[in-house]
Amino acid sequence: MKLPGRGEFQIIDYLRRCSSGSPELIEGIGDDCAVADLAPGQQLLTTTDLLTESVHFRLDWTDLFNLGRKAVSVNVSDLAAMGAQPRFLFLSLAIPDHLEVGSLEQFFRGFLEACTEYGAVLAGGDTCRSNTDLAMSVTAQGTAPATSWVSRRGAEVGDDIYLTGTIGDSGLALRQLRAGRDPDPFLLQRHCNPTARVATGLQLAGAGLAKAMIDISDGLLADLEHVLDRSGAGAVVELSALPLSQPFRTHMEKDPQLLDLALTGGEDYELLFAAAPDRAGEVAGISEQTGVPISRIGRITDRTSGLGVVRDGATVAMPRTRGYKHFPETA
Amino acid sequence: MKLPGRGEFQIIDYLRRCSSGSPELIEGIGDDCAVADLAPGQQLLTTTDLLTESVHFRLDWTDLFNLGRKAVSVNVSDLAAMGAQPRFLFLSLAIPDHLEVGSLEQFFRGFLEACTEYGAVLAGGDTCRSNTDLAMSVTAQGTAPATSWVSRRGAEVGDDIYLTGTIGDSGLALRQLRAGRDPDPFLLQRHCNPTARVATGLQLAGAGLAKAMIDISDGLLADLEHVLDRSGAGAVVELSALPLSQPFRTHMEKDPQLLDLALTGGEDYELLFAAAPDRAGEVAGISEQTGVPISRIGRITDRTSGLGVVRDGATVAMPRTRGYKHFPETA
Repeated sequence: MKLPGRGEFQIIDYLRRCSSGSPELIEGIGDDCAVADLAPGQQLLTTTDLLTESVHFRLDWTDLFNLGRKAVSVNVSDLAAMGAQPRFLFLSLAIPDHLEVGSLEQFFRGFLEACTEYGAVLAGGDTCRSNTDLAMSVTAQGTAPATSWVSRRGAEVGDDIYLTGTIGDSGLALRQLRAGRDPDPFLLQRHCNPTARVATGLQLAGAGLAKAMIDISDGLLADLEHVLDRSGAGAVVELSALPLSQPFRTHMEKDPQLLDLALTGGEDYELLFAAAPDRAGEVAGISEQTGVPISRIGRITDRTSGLGVVRDGATVAMPRTRGYKHFPETA
Repeated sequence: MKLPGRGEFQIIDYLRRCSSGSPELIEGIGDDCAVADLAPGQQLLTTTDLLTESVHFRLDWTDLFNLGRKAVSVNVSDLAAMGAQPRFLFLSLAIPDHLEVGSLEQFFRGFLEACTEYGAVLAGGDTCRSNTDLAMSVTAQGTAPATSWVSRRGAEVGDDIYLTGTIGDSGLALRQLRAGRDPDPFLLQRHCNPTARVATGLQLAGAGLAKAMIDISDGLLADLEHVLDRSGAGAVVELSALPLSQPFRTHMEKDPQLLDLALTGGEDYELLFAAAPDRAGEVAGISEQTGVPISRIGRITDRTSGLGVVRDGATVAMPRTRGYKHFPETA
């Protein structure tokens, strides 16, 4: 089905026709609010992200289809990080005049495809004209039983720290794009079309394995610090255990400093979690079931030890910055 | 409490300290998602609005405190229009460098004050830097029993059409601002700090009086048409019955054409609803209880009659435009 034009009601009508329903969604697109019925015993998890052109994305670095997918994935990743099942997404778009109808349609196609893959549906939103750049806000709602979702708070001394997938790929692609180079297709894919680890997050939470969990959006060290702050704990990360992709390793052979990028680059959308050491076998089992590699990268220590980085057990210096900041903290 | 700076974590920390909690909000600001527990039998209603500088507001026409209040009210109004109790709000802000910390704090104060007045709490959000204008996205979640919320669909031939409060005030203020004039304080207040009719919406829905309901954001005729489209009905609106404020009437004495503005101006955030004629006494009772005037402005007719406007029973011409459109519908 084709998007017939850029009118607000043309867009609403197009999205209503293209969106799949869900038995829990009583009213979808087309009223003042969406209305949903949560299954008994389920709690509601909500997250929201604002993405603006030239701050979060550049239209010469991504196609609109992948941008639509990524707008879903980065939100759904926050649900995955708490072990929730994605259910309902809300999309608000400020559309500049120069964005063509065909591009807008590609964006919607990517958005809706990703919703379907994660088991969620588009339930509402808002559109308006932008006098400047393209901007979008996505709110994602998920559900989880009251007993199974995972906060950032539960890490305890002696827990193992695990990471899904590989890190640094997205940050390296972004660095190459900024330098005017074409990234390897694998790295570019990791940056422009990341995968939220929904099934893995659900299984880790459902089995009670993840005691504290977060997704890596700001950077490994920055996000680990969020867990440590909330859990009142410290940590040691073992550099030799960091899961790095082959393309990343190839680049690192020429530039060993790239390891800092793996620690701080961000936008990996992998899950970092703490689990008790005696459950390592179960963690490995979930990795096998979901087909997502899970690596043990360190352990939780007491709060006074802070966050340390070691290589083969010997302390090394921390990178100067821990992760991405939109603004410097000011006095 | 003062906002110490514009850093992302400074803002998060400030908002976490200033926000009141709620027994239903299990996790508020500070994790990957907010987690909420809805009372048994309650359904979830969600609405979202994107507000951008120079499209939706101008910082030389409103102070930041009222802008914060309005960002809440326009969203909560959508919940009121379905008869839901506002519960949780999510605020995303793209902040330009030129916005001072003090202004940002005023915005947050207005936002949080309005949340409290409507019985809702700030539960999460996102902040980033904007390279251009101030932009904000607000998502509001409310709850209602499955049996009581009101869609746009239930209007039937013979129903009375009612409107809360007065209309046209906000549109007239905007027209005066655009012409470089200072609007009357009453009109300006109606434009910059509208009130969502939450208590009235809840009572109309709870008593089963409102069969179809909508809030007036696009303009009376445009929003009535949304109800008619969804209900498969027509309507007649009686011009002499339109509720107009004294300041609006004073201006209209000099310029009778202003009546068109009352029909199409938008941003009134009053509730329009259809109710069975035999329940007029109950509608009057709710008006008295909530202290909000409710006027009967017309009646629902069959679909083939379309939407008509009459004065003392005689048909008059419709305004050329029905309400605000962000984009023209294009081929």
